[in-house]
Amino acid sequence: MKIAIVYGGTRAHGNTEMLTEQAVKDLHVDRIFLKEYRIQPIEDLRHTEEGFHDIDDDYNSVIDRVLEADVLVFATPIYWYGMSGFMKNFVDRWSQTLRDSNRPRFREQMKGKTGYVIAVGGDQPLLKGLPLVLQFQHIFEFFGTQYGGYVLGEGNRPGAILEDREAMRKAELLNAVLKERV
Amino acid sequence: MKIAIVYGGTRAHGNTEMLTEQAVKDLHVDRIFLKEYRIQPIEDLRHTEEGFHDIDDDYNSVIDRVLEADVLVFATPIYWYGMSGFMKNFVDRWSQTLRDSNRPRFREQMKGKTGYVIAVGGDQPLLKGLPLVLQFQHIFEFFGTQYGGYVLGEGNRPGAILEDREAMRKAELLNAVLKERV
Amino acid sequence: MKIAIVYGGTRAHGNTEMLTEQAVKDLHVDRIFLKEYRIQPIEDLRHTEEGFHDIDDDYNSVIDRVLEADVLVFATPIYWYGMSGFMKNFVDRWSQTLRDSNRPRFREQMKGKTGYVIAVGGDQPLLKGLPLVLQFQHIFEFFGTQYGGYVLGEGNRPGAILEDREAMRKAELLNAVLKERV
Amino acid sequence: MKIAIVYGGTRAHGNTEMLTEQAVKDLHVDRIFLKEYRIQPIEDLRHTEEGFHDIDDDYNSVIDRVLEADVLVFATPIYWYGMSGFMKNFVDRWSQTLRDSNRPRFREQMKGKTGYVIAVGGDQPLLKGLPLVLQFQHIFEFFGTQYGGYVLGEGNRPGAILEDREAMRKAELLNAVLKERV
Repeated sequence: MKIAIVYGGTRAHGNTEMLTEQAVKDLHVDRIFLKEYRIQPIEDLRHTEEGFHDIDDDYNSVIDRVLEADVLVFATPIYWYGMSGFMKNFVDRWSQTLRDSNRPRFREQMKGKTGYVIAVGGDQPLLKGLPLVLQFQHIFEFFGTQYGGYVLGEGNRPGAILEDREAMRKAELLNAVLKERV
Repeated sequence: MKIAIVYGGTRAHGNTEMLTEQAVKDLHVDRIFLKEYRIQPIEDLRHTEEGFHDIDDDYNSVIDRVLEADVLVFATPIYWYGMSGFMKNFVDRWSQTLRDSNRPRFREQMKGKTGYVIAVGGDQPLLKGLPLVLQFQHIFEFFGTQYGGYVLGEGNRPGAILEDREAMRKAELLNAVLKERV
Repeated sequence: MKIAIVYGGTRAHGNTEMLTEQAVKDLHVDRIFLKEYRIQPIEDLRHTEEGFHDIDDDYNSVIDRVLEADVLVFATPIYWYGMSGFMKNFVDRWSQTLRDSNRPRFREQMKGKTGYVIAVGGDQPLLKGLPLVLQFQHIFEFFGTQYGGYVLGEGNRPGAILEDREAMRKAELLNAVLKERV
Repeated sequence: MKIAIVYGGTRAHGNTEMLTEQAVKDLHVDRIFLKEYRIQPIEDLRHTEEGFHDIDDDYNSVIDRVLEADVLVFATPIYWYGMSGFMKNFVDRWSQTLRDSNRPRFREQMKGKTGYVIAVGGDQPLLKGLPLVLQFQHIFEFFGTQYGGYVLGEGNRPGAILEDREAMRKAELLNAVLKERV
């Protein structure tokens, strides 16, 4: 079983990363730090005669790593009660991949995976992070991806997540679940 | 009373735009098409010693137009059950403005405004657009911005929104409300 | 096409009723005022050897009227951000009907229907009524019932709903839709 | 610190009870099994000249036990993606207590408390239990009650909750938190 983490944060070793690393401790994972790649926002050309054209950026190499994994962990700081713009831009591009003749099995491949959401925010994330949880519910449902679960943690200043014992413990539990699946 | 529309779409005269223009018919509005501006994603430097530094892009000129308005209409196509990446990147940058010594009254100014959300999607937007509505509930609550209302419309191919009579009618109603406020 | 309204309110001619009657104006409908019937709360006996036993109350006669309809309108005042206890007790009993050998096609029959939710509350119903909308999303999904739509109105003192022009207009629109279906 | 559990279930030693008892292990708590009391549904008389009149049932004795507690745990099986009708009927009656001259400090007293929600369901409770979590968010917000947290567990047949390790572990964590507060 292959695991890929899609990191949406911009701060190295941030709270979201700490929490997520707890969840994948001792596991071999592919870490995708979206911030390190050049990924253009989508331009909606679904309804033009020519359709989408190739974009010269890093998106394709990233989506191919995503497609290789069996388990996807979407790990994002909660920015304004949603996923980061970095992550949203990446997700938006999936609309293009859905029509990419080089990846005709995209939808079917996503269906076979299990997705997790890990998100850390500073303002009542257990409640105000729920729109993000619901958004991923619809995203996963679109593909038929199994929603494995989610961990919402609280933290603002660097390292604060370590004091959210409940979130850290949930990450440990997720770690145990993932280890069993390997 | 000044109205500004923050457009998050990428297609000119798209469904979201059609629906939104119905809501502001015969009104003087400032239309901000985010796609036409260069707006960098946020880099979270809140916790660094130096804090945020100035970004050389169009963000500041756009946020200043937003701040001049009394009524804000966030108009976005529903991409993957949320606002577009273009719009999310713009909203994310507000975290920087919250600490911008050139705009010390940002939070207070936002508090005095009324916000609306207009969003169009192709997959059961009246239900699957609700995470977006809830997200803006938290965003507006953060500032104390009044949530004036929202209009969710259904449409996929160009012009389809015109057949969503209920959404078009809601936009007309919003138009009447806005005209009374002018 | 037969329409049944399941009324969860306790006040005659209340705001919810006014709004709902606008939606079914000039249509022949079966009005079920739950308050007028004796409906026991469910007792969960799914896991006992004997299973559920017949309850001597009005539930069965009411559920049979529900089953005769093609369109179901669940009309409830928003009590504490949810449907009324009267309506919840009625819905809870569906678990018993799911195992009722006298109504073996219950699930299948519900699947063929279209459901609407009409709810009126006094505290920001367009936002705080959304948990109720989401709850019915799951309920309808369980059966495969089509979610036709929902109307959330604002009102507290008697007759106040008439001043919520947006809600009244949405009810008119729903009326037009229902008339076309007849 | 006093803890009261408001139990909405109908099955003795059901899954919800097992999960909740884990959360209050070794603590002195007042257990209120709503099913054991006679509590009438509310009749909305807020707008009549006479207002509410006394109901001859067990409600008042139960609400007084609730008011004596500092921590309230609302523990309910998830019936049709919401709290049980038993619990909803009880909550609905709060509208009457808000106008009860014998309990003039009701709202203020509720404000000083911390509330928890524990709920067990058989159909994807981590996702489909969220409307219930959101509903309590609004309920607690109404009073200013602090939302301490929630535990959603999965289980259908008797005892199944014990196999939901994640939920049981969350209940243990809650137990530790509550013990620290005592």
